Amino acid sequence: MPKNREATHEAEIRQVIDDWTQALHDKDIDRLWSHYSPDILSFDIAPPLQHGRELRKELEEWFDTWSGPIGCEIRDLTITVGGDVAFSHSLNRLHGMRTDGEETDVWMRATLCFRKIDGVWKVVHEHTSVPLYMDGSGRAAVDLTP
Amino acid sequence: MPKNREATHEAEIRQVIDDWTQALHDKDIDRLWSHYSPDILSFDIAPPLQHGRELRKELEEWFDTWSGPIGCEIRDLTITVGGDVAFSHSLNRLHGMRTDGEETDVWMRATLCFRKIDGVWKVVHEHTSVPLYMDGSGRAAVDLTP
Repeated sequence: MPKNREATHEAEIRQVIDDWTQALHDKDIDRLWSHYSPDILSFDIAPPLQHGRELRKELEEWFDTWSGPIGCEIRDLTITVGGDVAFSHSLNRLHGMRTDGEETDVWMRATLCFRKIDGVWKVVHEHTSVPLYMDGSGRAAVDLTP
Repeated sequence: MPKNREATHEAEIRQVIDDWTQALHDKDIDRLWSHYSPDILSFDIAPPLQHGRELRKELEEWFDTWSGPIGCEIRDLTITVGGDVAFSHSLNRLHGMRTDGEETDVWMRATLCFRKIDGVWKVVHEHTSVPLYMDGSGRAAVDLTP
């Protein structure tokens, strides 16, 4: 792909991720969901192993567990584009106050896979997680920092 | 991309994943590593948050914790190709005996991101994980099945 076309695609995807982050902050489900393809296949940080379009309802319910905005700091974002397919990866710090009075502050890994559908980049697959401690404790590694 | 060219690319990537699985089974680090790009960025199931080319040494050490072959059953494999970029996602059941006498049998989520470099598909990014139980226990969900 010509370098300038690749740069344009990258800028478009960066804009999608920026808008996704703002929608998450504002707990605006319509705006957030507009970036997903109807056939989304999500490997979310929450069970079960995989989620389809029921993810929208699950996200809405999850929004209700945050008392204020959902902060999402994105670090080391890398975007790779080929034709009408792209992927990105980044480390995302999710932070804010929960309705139970607890504070959430956790670094996660995020991989997003895109297709350009009718001229617009849509997330067709996402994978968010924290690692698993290999000490036999079965604990998730929610306390790591980049 | 023409449909038949897309099918060829998909078949090539399926072959890479087949060979990767066989190399894992045989704990053949050279063969496994041949499928990775030198600038691999891995979000592995094991800490830390991200791994670079040190992953090779970590995999070798991890191989030594298995007394026999490493079984990897791949389910729901989906491959998406665009130009010289592709991604796949699947549910992988990792199973076998460990040197400490324990049996491992866990379903993970796997996302692989590829670039075609000098005519060969290489893994430039991978993300493997299990979910995190959202019950406040901090437990990793290692007991889920598809």
